[in-house]
Amino acid sequence: MELWFTEKHTQGAGLSLKCKRTLYSHKSRFQQIDVLETEEFGRLLLLDGLVMTTERDEFFYHEMLVHPPMHYHGERVQSVLVIGGGDGGAVRELLRYPEIERVILCEIDKEVVDVSKRFFPSISFALDDPKVEIKYADGSTILGEHKNDLDMIIIDSTDPIGAAKVLFTERFYRSCRKALKKNGILCAQSESPIYHLSTIKEIKEALKAAGFPFLNFYISPVPTYPGGLWSWVMAGCNDMKIQEKFQPLSKKTYDELKFFNLDILKGCICLPNFFKKALSL
Amino acid sequence: MELWFTEKHTQGAGLSLKCKRTLYSHKSRFQQIDVLETEEFGRLLLLDGLVMTTERDEFFYHEMLVHPPMHYHGERVQSVLVIGGGDGGAVRELLRYPEIERVILCEIDKEVVDVSKRFFPSISFALDDPKVEIKYADGSTILGEHKNDLDMIIIDSTDPIGAAKVLFTERFYRSCRKALKKNGILCAQSESPIYHLSTIKEIKEALKAAGFPFLNFYISPVPTYPGGLWSWVMAGCNDMKIQEKFQPLSKKTYDELKFFNLDILKGCICLPNFFKKALSL
Repeated sequence: MELWFTEKHTQGAGLSLKCKRTLYSHKSRFQQIDVLETEEFGRLLLLDGLVMTTERDEFFYHEMLVHPPMHYHGERVQSVLVIGGGDGGAVRELLRYPEIERVILCEIDKEVVDVSKRFFPSISFALDDPKVEIKYADGSTILGEHKNDLDMIIIDSTDPIGAAKVLFTERFYRSCRKALKKNGILCAQSESPIYHLSTIKEIKEALKAAGFPFLNFYISPVPTYPGGLWSWVMAGCNDMKIQEKFQPLSKKTYDELKFFNLDILKGCICLPNFFKKALSL
Repeated sequence: MELWFTEKHTQGAGLSLKCKRTLYSHKSRFQQIDVLETEEFGRLLLLDGLVMTTERDEFFYHEMLVHPPMHYHGERVQSVLVIGGGDGGAVRELLRYPEIERVILCEIDKEVVDVSKRFFPSISFALDDPKVEIKYADGSTILGEHKNDLDMIIIDSTDPIGAAKVLFTERFYRSCRKALKKNGILCAQSESPIYHLSTIKEIKEALKAAGFPFLNFYISPVPTYPGGLWSWVMAGCNDMKIQEKFQPLSKKTYDELKFFNLDILKGCICLPNFFKKALSL
């Protein structure tokens, strides 16, 4: 018998992964959580049946979620809020920066953190670091506790359906802006350029309306995500520029990364015509 | 009833596409040829059960196969040989350059050309251009007819199995070098960075051994190809450099492209760490 899991990315296309067995399957207060052991990508975390991360390709996503905004910020980043991201991958990448003193992880579903600690130690290990404070709450509540005191906010959300829908609204982005310092950067995953161009356009318009005049979209491959290609957006109140030769990580740490490097930093903001046209960039 | 086609990219991962109907299915002298009407990607061409191209995402591949080497060449490109590529997509992109006077398409299987003309007119239309000469033969035979008279060779091959295996050998690359002018460029599709790193390494070593000292690998997304990410390599006897502000196409033509632009030209050679390490780049 062969057991295959297929995530339908649209009504007519999907990714199929052969599975060895189910390691965990439970409905939490917020969502269905499953962990499968796949043949090709190692362990796979599913939330409501959608691929969140796999052991083999999580670095494509997590490195590109964190390192571009950390290199665009250009000043000392001390305090970062991660919204979502209960698997711990974003936190792990943030803690590579010695300058970061405090990471607040705001995850609505404690069971995601527990499952990640149990089944994905290579992704979640940084969650036990003393610099990390985990708050089990929705993002809006935590944002209300901050006023111009965060250097960076990372939105590591699921797709804009169900509980995560609010994380893609103008109102929410406005709360982020108020929680950030004047030179702060918001970085959000912004869905697939292949299948979700209209959502990406809505994200752009909501960020502009929320008072972020400077937006930098970037794209990079994630093999197990819809279309194999993903997008993110950095939003700021000041113009963001890559500072040539700005290297906030040690040579050893750059060498340890599996995807990101200073070439990728320049390359990821090079956008194809269809993407620029759809977003009027 | 729902009909789904799944291409297994490995034993444990694949792309699944919902199909409306089969438009063509026939075993030619060389391979099984199928054309399916898919729900998400329009018409789909399969050779021996593997995705060659789809109406919706063919531009990701064909634009990136042709425009990077055409921009790296830096001198007048008049004469180009395409090996494989019977669908006509590479030829269509080449004919966007007014400087190109002659394109020879060397396709071993006439039935691929016939099927493409019949079912994929938006990809194949350029095959009827008077600048194009189609030769139904294997690549090695045609290369024997040339000596230092080609400006560019494009290898638009299937995977290195069956008839296409020879197109990945040192011997074949050596024939290419001899057919090229001194400043000529060979550009070949070089498989998926996600699943075929060892093949890409073999391509690198074979090209070096064949007397191409300068190699430039580049990568770009192709949603329906294995891993959603593809690689190509430009090989030359002289060092290749992007000449800033070198624009061999008209503004109108650049605007017509769906993927490639001068930012992408710079971005596509920015390679992730795992790729550089695997290839010792």
